[in-house]
Amino acid sequence: MSYDHSDVPLDPSTEEPAAVVAEPLPEDARLEFSRLPEDQQAEVLGGLDIDDAAEFVERLPWEQTVDVVAGLPPEFAADLLEALPSDTRADVINELEKDDAEAILEEMDPEEAESARELAQYSDDVAGGLMITELVRYDESSTVQDVIDDMRENADRYRDYDVQYAFIVDADERLTGVLRLRDLLLSRRAKPVLDLMIRNPLAVRDDMTLEELETFFDEHNFIGVPAVDGAGRMLGVVRASAVEERLGERKDLAYLNTQGLIKEEVRSMPLFRRSSRRLAWLSVNIFLNIIAASVIALYQDTLASVIALAVFLPIISDMSGCSGNQAVAVSGRELALGLVRPAELMWVWGKELAVGLINGSALGLLIGIVAYLWKGNVFLGLVVGSALFLNTVVAVSIGGLVPLILKRFDVDPAVASGPILTTVTDMCGFFFVLGLATLLLSKLV
Amino acid sequence: MSYDHSDVPLDPSTEEPAAVVAEPLPEDARLEFSRLPEDQQAEVLGGLDIDDAAEFVERLPWEQTVDVVAGLPPEFAADLLEALPSDTRADVINELEKDDAEAILEEMDPEEAESARELAQYSDDVAGGLMITELVRYDESSTVQDVIDDMRENADRYRDYDVQYAFIVDADERLTGVLRLRDLLLSRRAKPVLDLMIRNPLAVRDDMTLEELETFFDEHNFIGVPAVDGAGRMLGVVRASAVEERLGERKDLAYLNTQGLIKEEVRSMPLFRRSSRRLAWLSVNIFLNIIAASVIALYQDTLASVIALAVFLPIISDMSGCSGNQAVAVSGRELALGLVRPAELMWVWGKELAVGLINGSALGLLIGIVAYLWKGNVFLGLVVGSALFLNTVVAVSIGGLVPLILKRFDVDPAVASGPILTTVTDMCGFFFVLGLATLLLSKLV
Repeated sequence: MSYDHSDVPLDPSTEEPAAVVAEPLPEDARLEFSRLPEDQQAEVLGGLDIDDAAEFVERLPWEQTVDVVAGLPPEFAADLLEALPSDTRADVINELEKDDAEAILEEMDPEEAESARELAQYSDDVAGGLMITELVRYDESSTVQDVIDDMRENADRYRDYDVQYAFIVDADERLTGVLRLRDLLLSRRAKPVLDLMIRNPLAVRDDMTLEELETFFDEHNFIGVPAVDGAGRMLGVVRASAVEERLGERKDLAYLNTQGLIKEEVRSMPLFRRSSRRLAWLSVNIFLNIIAASVIALYQDTLASVIALAVFLPIISDMSGCSGNQAVAVSGRELALGLVRPAELMWVWGKELAVGLINGSALGLLIGIVAYLWKGNVFLGLVVGSALFLNTVVAVSIGGLVPLILKRFDVDPAVASGPILTTVTDMCGFFFVLGLATLLLSKLV
Repeated sequence: MSYDHSDVPLDPSTEEPAAVVAEPLPEDARLEFSRLPEDQQAEVLGGLDIDDAAEFVERLPWEQTVDVVAGLPPEFAADLLEALPSDTRADVINELEKDDAEAILEEMDPEEAESARELAQYSDDVAGGLMITELVRYDESSTVQDVIDDMRENADRYRDYDVQYAFIVDADERLTGVLRLRDLLLSRRAKPVLDLMIRNPLAVRDDMTLEELETFFDEHNFIGVPAVDGAGRMLGVVRASAVEERLGERKDLAYLNTQGLIKEEVRSMPLFRRSSRRLAWLSVNIFLNIIAASVIALYQDTLASVIALAVFLPIISDMSGCSGNQAVAVSGRELALGLVRPAELMWVWGKELAVGLINGSALGLLIGIVAYLWKGNVFLGLVVGSALFLNTVVAVSIGGLVPLILKRFDVDPAVASGPILTTVTDMCGFFFVLGLATLLLSKLV
C-alpha cells in the first residue's frame, strides 16, 4: 500500500470512524475513451489533472497507451511520462518510434530523462525492465538519526514511494545492506546503520530473466527484491507483483499467438492493420492446408468409388486436431512449470502413447460403429475406425513432442505447434482413411 | 521483501561487502519429486526440516500440492500446513476431501485451525480467499511507544510478516486507520496512534471479486490493501502479487479449458484419470463433428459427380475455424479488458464483418485460383472461392459474437466458444461448397 494524499483524506479532524470500502470503478470511461479518435483522446487527457491523466493512460490496453502518448504534443507527453512510475515510463519510451521518444525526452527534466533512457534499454522480460527506481538509499556512514532526518526532510518526495526498506550502499554505489524500517524503529538514534542493516542481502542481477524471477519469488515469499548490475551496484527494486503481472501478459500473448494474433489487437485499431495482421497468419495456414489436402487428391479414384469416405475426412482431421492440441497444451504447461525437460522426448512419448491408445480405441470404435450403422458395411466401419485410432496415436505423439522440440531450438512453442500439428495430422489422417480404403476397396464397393 | 533468518546471514561481524546475488535454483528437485509415487513423496518430505518441506510443497503444481498433503499422516500434514502462509493453507484445506481436511485440522493448534476453517470458506476468486492474516493490529488507545514495545516483544513472531503497515481497529475490531512505519519513525513516542494514523484508509470487502480487485490495483499503485467484512471488521491483507498470481492461474486454466482439459493435468497423474478427462471433451467434439459432417452426406450425389470437391471440404472447414478463432480470441480479450460490453453485439459484428469481407476475399480468391489451376474449370474455382469467402464472413461473425452471448448467459466463453464455432462453421462451409456446386452442377462435370 502506498497511501498518498490523493487516495485518503488526511485531515486528522475527521470523525468518521469506518474504513472507506473501495468500490470498483465503472469501466465505461475507459471503454468510451478507447473508441475516441486519437486527436480527441489527446483533448480529453489535456483536460485532466496530470496525475489523473497518467493514471488513466496507464490503465489502457498497452498498445493504446503507446499510441496515445505518441499522439500527444511532446511537451504534454513529457509531463505525462514524468507522472508515470519509472518502470511504465521506460516501457512506453521503449515502444515509441525513436524520433517520438527523443522529442519527448528532450522536454523532460534532464535527470529524469537520463534515468528513463537507461531503464528503456532493458527488455521487459528481465529484472532491469521490471524494476522501479523509486527507492531510498543511504551510504554506509549514516546513522539511524541521519536516516530519520532525511526521511523527514524529503517526506514529500517519498510520499509516493513504497518505503519499506532503505538500501545501504558503499562508496562505489554497491549494495551492501538492507535496513528494515521496523529495525530502525526499535533502535537507538545514534546507532550506525552498518550495525543495524541486514548484510549480504539477497539481490537479483539486472539481466535476470522473467522465468528466473518467477522461480526466485516462488522460492522466497518476498514482495520485492533489490536489483543490482554486474558490479553489484544498486539499481532498483523488482516487485513480486510486477513479475506476476508481466507473466500474466505473456500468457495472454501466448494465447493470442496460438491464433496468429501476434500483436495485441483491439477492435478500435484501424481496419487494415487488423485485417492484415490476421491475414498474414491465415495465409500461412491456407498453404499448409492445401499441402495436407493434396493427399486427398492422390486418392481421387478410391474416393469416387466410395463416396461415403468424404464424410469422414473432415471428422478425422478435426478430431485428431483436438487430441493433438490437448497434448500440446499439457506439454506447454509442463514446460512452463519445469516438470519436463525439453530433452525428455521418450518419457513424454510413452505417456502420450498410453493416452492415445486408450482414447484412440474409444473414438475409433465409436466412429467405426457410426460408419457401419450408416452404410451397413462392416469394412467401412473398420477402415474409418482404424484410421481414427491410428491418427489419434499419431496426433498425441506429435502434439506431445513438438513443443519440446521447438523449445530445444528456442522457438516459442505457442506460435508454431498448432500449424505443424494440424498439417501433419491432417496428412496422416487422410492417408490412413484413403490408404486403408484402397487396400480394402473390393470389400467397400 | 521479508528478510528472515533462513534467507540472509544475520551475523553483523561478517566482512563480505557485496550483496549476495540470487541464482535461480535448478528445477530438477521439483521435477524428480513430482514423478515419485505418493508414499515416497511423503518419505522425502518427512526427511526435511518442516519449513523447507512447506516451501517445497508450496512450489509444486497446485493439483500435486493437494495430492501430496492428502497422502501424508494427519499429524505431519498439520505441521506442514502450519508452516504454510495462511492463504495457501486455506486453499489446501479447501481442496482436500472433507474427511482428510477434518483429520488434519484436529491435529492443528486449535486457534490456527479455527482461523484456517474461516479462511477456507472463501472461494479463491474473492478477496477473502486471497488475503493473508499475518498482520499487526493495535487498538485505538495505543501510543507510538506501545506499538514499538509490542514489536520488540514479538520480534520473533513478526519476523516472517511483511510488517510495512500496522492496522488500527476500534473496540468492535473495525478498521479505522493505517499506520505507516515511516510515520512511527518520525514521531514522538508518547503520541497516540490516533493522531498519527491515516484515517478512513481504503479497504476492500472480503467478497470483492478477483476482477474487481484487478481493477482496484490498476487504479491504485498499492502493494496490498486491507480486507474487511461487511461490518468493516479487519480481516486480513490482500497483496497485489496474490491477485496477479491468481489472475495468471486463471489464464492458464482458461487456455486449458479451450482444449477440454478442465482440470490441471500433469503427466505424473494416473493414466486413466488423464485419458478419461481428455476423452470426455473429445466425445462431445466427435458428436458435434458427426452432426456437421452429416451435411456432406446430404450432398453425396453432387460429390460423386465432382469428386474434386472432397479435397476442398477439409480446407474450408479448417480455414474457417482459424478465422473464427481469431475473432473469438479478440472478443475474449476485449471482454477481459472491459473494452466491450456483452450487449454490444452490433458494434462487434460491424467490426468483424469488415475484417471478414477483406480476409474472406483474399482467401477466397487464393483458393479459387488454386482450384481453377488444378482442374482448369473456372466454375470450380468460383464455387470453392465463393464458399470460402462466405464462410469466412460467417466464421468471424460467429467467432466475434459467441463469446459476448455466452458471457451474457454467464457461461465461460473459453470452454464453449470453440466447439460451437467449429460446428456451425463446418456445417455452413460444407453447405456453401456443396450447395453452390449443386446449383452449378452442369458447369462442373
